[in-house]
Amino acid sequence: MRIAQVSPLWESVPPTLYGGTERIVSYLTEELVRLGHDVTLFASGDSITTAHLAPICAHALRLNKGIFNRDAPMTMLMERALGTTGEFDIIHSHLDFMGFPLSRRNPTPTITTFHGRLDLPELQPVFREYAEMPIVSISDAQRKPVSWANWRATVYHGLPGDLYSFHSNPGKYLAFLGRIAPEKRPDHAIEIAKRTGIPLRIAAKVDPTDREYFHAEIEPLLSHPLVEYLGEITDAEKNEFLGQAMALVCPYDWPEPFGLVLIEALACGTPVLAYRRGSIPELIEDNVTGFICEGVDNLAAAAHRVSEIDRQRCRSTFEERFTASRMAQDYIRVYQQLLVKKREVETVSNGHHSVSVPSLVATA
Amino acid sequence: MRIAQVSPLWESVPPTLYGGTERIVSYLTEELVRLGHDVTLFASGDSITTAHLAPICAHALRLNKGIFNRDAPMTMLMERALGTTGEFDIIHSHLDFMGFPLSRRNPTPTITTFHGRLDLPELQPVFREYAEMPIVSISDAQRKPVSWANWRATVYHGLPGDLYSFHSNPGKYLAFLGRIAPEKRPDHAIEIAKRTGIPLRIAAKVDPTDREYFHAEIEPLLSHPLVEYLGEITDAEKNEFLGQAMALVCPYDWPEPFGLVLIEALACGTPVLAYRRGSIPELIEDNVTGFICEGVDNLAAAAHRVSEIDRQRCRSTFEERFTASRMAQDYIRVYQQLLVKKREVETVSNGHHSVSVPSLVATA
Repeated sequence: MRIAQVSPLWESVPPTLYGGTERIVSYLTEELVRLGHDVTLFASGDSITTAHLAPICAHALRLNKGIFNRDAPMTMLMERALGTTGEFDIIHSHLDFMGFPLSRRNPTPTITTFHGRLDLPELQPVFREYAEMPIVSISDAQRKPVSWANWRATVYHGLPGDLYSFHSNPGKYLAFLGRIAPEKRPDHAIEIAKRTGIPLRIAAKVDPTDREYFHAEIEPLLSHPLVEYLGEITDAEKNEFLGQAMALVCPYDWPEPFGLVLIEALACGTPVLAYRRGSIPELIEDNVTGFICEGVDNLAAAAHRVSEIDRQRCRSTFEERFTASRMAQDYIRVYQQLLVKKREVETVSNGHHSVSVPSLVATA
Repeated sequence: MRIAQVSPLWESVPPTLYGGTERIVSYLTEELVRLGHDVTLFASGDSITTAHLAPICAHALRLNKGIFNRDAPMTMLMERALGTTGEFDIIHSHLDFMGFPLSRRNPTPTITTFHGRLDLPELQPVFREYAEMPIVSISDAQRKPVSWANWRATVYHGLPGDLYSFHSNPGKYLAFLGRIAPEKRPDHAIEIAKRTGIPLRIAAKVDPTDREYFHAEIEPLLSHPLVEYLGEITDAEKNEFLGQAMALVCPYDWPEPFGLVLIEALACGTPVLAYRRGSIPELIEDNVTGFICEGVDNLAAAAHRVSEIDRQRCRSTFEERFTASRMAQDYIRVYQQLLVKKREVETVSNGHHSVSVPSLVATA
């Protein structure tokens, strides 16, 4: 298949630092190329890929101080990637609803993956307006606020199988990884360390918007002897940080659409302790790959039972459900369904089978 | 003509406080209605108009704390206003290049007025991509960085004729009105007051991005006995503030695409002192409606000669060149040219005159 992958321009693909969406676009793109598909990646020019790179701007926008009007490269991206016909069999947009105006007018089948939360009231009119657009959720929980929209599949994120390595021996600390933010409840993670006496290591960045919260609420708690704050760590350091942990603790208190760090932990063989919020119960099986419960008391009690979890089972769950290979296969199935649907529509409107359609199998 | 006016959603139409674009959209819309055209205004729901209001969101976005994702109402605006065909003879977009992807695909003639500066390098690829789109500049100077684009006219802004009243007697102070910002050089205005001994009254807002500049550079200068700082003033207060001034001083040091305050001064009969930048020489005639020169020395010297300027001539220049009525007539001429062009294209493609076209005259 001739496939266009359309990434936001905020970060390069893959991103040099953070950037969940762009990381997933990278994993998916590389896997589709590996499977023999003809893939074009629309992204910032500093992206690195084995696909054809269609660069829209020289550098990713977040760290690019030279660009004042960011709508300009975004408009170019949408015109070039979502506005052209004939070049691709399938266009896969990661621009959320921003691409809908052009995708609606493009006869090339276009599928859009939503990467963020969908519970903002101002999104409702947009989903109603574009109710016919085929879309993909990254968890079943994510689509709840607009469950009536044209969801074609839930495709869970996936990571390259060899990105993280299995660690058979449980370590002696709990790990907290991600952002310091009120909805992530790092204060609960610290409380669990205090109640259980199990050390907690925190590897997390503090975004500018969360700096006041960090200084006021979290910094005073970091002096506790059981707590170690490492600041930001690199992707390379994550393997050891997660793999050597007894468990990842995720006391998130918001409807997380997909917690990438949870499957990173599973890839290392590390179980997860979390509240029942958003996508969490879809990623973690209670009593099998971790413990899901309510309230800091129960999560602290669960921490004492982590040794009951089979770390090999965590890794095998990752291999079955959360690899980039499985993700790519899921998306190929979505692409194929769209192509079949397009063929059906064309057959009906032509009255007979005379329309050339792209091969559903890879060309390699 | 059935005309759609498409305003940004940032401020209501007219704006409650600042908002140059939305003020002009309001003046133009009301004048077109007065001339008997069938006008639909796409804008925030708190707008006030005699046209048909097509509300996109309940409240203008700038002061609307309830909306996190501002791309959502903007997408709805573009789909509804720029994406529909058959409802209008002419669509007039004030969304800059943001509307180009949909306008290009809409057979309804669409004209876009650019309201801002065009000298950012990232705009060049966008103008090249959409080179066929018909566009209007608000001054000849504005279009210089993309002079090769499909400019159909320069239409200077205009104000309702009775918005400001003629003040025949020159006052005893210089007026500075607008924003405190480095490129507006309020420090030069203060320097001119000191050198000439003529009092200066400053009526200006300080945007959050300019607060540091204000505190560091300007605030220390405000204690001078010749300088009076009034802060922000309302539209209602502007008439007296400008009308009772000896002259408006505009030592702007950037390529101002259109200085609305300059024609507000002329409407009051007040001459203008300014540097030769951007659109200024198109708005002010040197020695006739003010003085245009280089450097603070020359501007200070010019301040002593303000009594040579005929205030009645300033007012009559406003009435000839800068009323909303003249602006509306200019735009109607642009609309008519687009309709004629569309008719020609349709005639050629149909081979004979069989296409119904809208009347070029108002229906009232």
